Amino acid sequence: MTRDNASSGSRRPGRQVIVDAAVRCFYKQGYEGSSVRDIAEDAGVTPAALYHYYASKQDLLMDLITRFMASSIDRTEDALRRAGPDPVARLFGAAQSHVLWNASDVASSFIVNSEIRSLSPANREQHIAQRDRLQRLFDTCVEEGCDKGVFTTPWPHEASRAVVVMCTFVARWYRESGPLSPEEIAWRYGHMALSLVGASRGPQFEPPTYESVNGR
Amino acid sequence: MTRDNASSGSRRPGRQVIVDAAVRCFYKQGYEGSSVRDIAEDAGVTPAALYHYYASKQDLLMDLITRFMASSIDRTEDALRRAGPDPVARLFGAAQSHVLWNASDVASSFIVNSEIRSLSPANREQHIAQRDRLQRLFDTCVEEGCDKGVFTTPWPHEASRAVVVMCTFVARWYRESGPLSPEEIAWRYGHMALSLVGASRGPQFEPPTYESVNGR
Repeated sequence: MTRDNASSGSRRPGRQVIVDAAVRCFYKQGYEGSSVRDIAEDAGVTPAALYHYYASKQDLLMDLITRFMASSIDRTEDALRRAGPDPVARLFGAAQSHVLWNASDVASSFIVNSEIRSLSPANREQHIAQRDRLQRLFDTCVEEGCDKGVFTTPWPHEASRAVVVMCTFVARWYRESGPLSPEEIAWRYGHMALSLVGASRGPQFEPPTYESVNGR
Repeated sequence: MTRDNASSGSRRPGRQVIVDAAVRCFYKQGYEGSSVRDIAEDAGVTPAALYHYYASKQDLLMDLITRFMASSIDRTEDALRRAGPDPVARLFGAAQSHVLWNASDVASSFIVNSEIRSLSPANREQHIAQRDRLQRLFDTCVEEGCDKGVFTTPWPHEASRAVVVMCTFVARWYRESGPLSPEEIAWRYGHMALSLVGASRGPQFEPPTYESVNGR
């Protein structure tokens, strides 16, 4: 999966194996309900191997959350860049991207959005800064649309937060076995985000064809 | 708070004292991270007193979740009843009510929406039936609006789910110390729910006056 795992010359289990096991454990029984021993056992490594990468269970949680949030931010920035200057295209793209990202890893999304309480005060502060940064990307996008008169919501701040929440928490109900592909769901959420901010016109984009995505 | 506690003739600690302690413990350290001893200690009772009311920690969690969801359903039904037949008024009222209920107890709302994994299979099934019942109240409301041509969303089902999600998860960020009262937030969310479903007209209701609510 990662360079760690790919370095076949090393006999040390990769960091990703441990992160994947932590995600499974935290998702199933919560951070407080998972011991370092549980995680190591799930990963098929010794606790010592885990401690090679992480000083503590707290470090492991923080790394998992930080990396997920960093990807959320990167993907949103990328979607905004690709969308160009039109606020309609920007919000449509950012909302879609955020749905796809959260649906792509429902377990990590769940942990990131439920284990903030388990972060140490310093880590929590760092996480909140990251979360605020993500929210501001959407806020700016919605504010720009309002300034240009293409979004009509009287409450850009609340609308922007509601958009992020509804896209994030797709991970709470999305299952691969469901009737809609992630791309179809993301496409609908892109439109619903535009409705939510009172967009005065639609995105006028074609629906996804699915041909090149996940073999669908 | 409850009749249990009010029955001053009894020396037995009330059930509500135990439920309140469980909410604090589960909110802070999760279900798996909280022992019966932790909960009893927080409640200032003996584990035996807790076992007088609940056969197990699982029973306590299930009772807490079931009662919260039953209230969610009751309050939504009540809001729909009060709103009368107009789909605009109905969705506006139901969304407002759902925001107010979740903001009124952010800790219980958090537990209900993050500890489903900790329910036994039979309890989980029962919970999902309850959750579906709540969702169907909103679904029916949105479908009726679409049938009557006052809601224009092409995706009543997704829009309805997004409305419930965005109203439920107000509990994730709402704090009493924030700048907006719950009533003002609920009022804005009522409008945003209507935007989300593409309502062809607004609710034409007055904003809340706050006079009679919580002394504001």
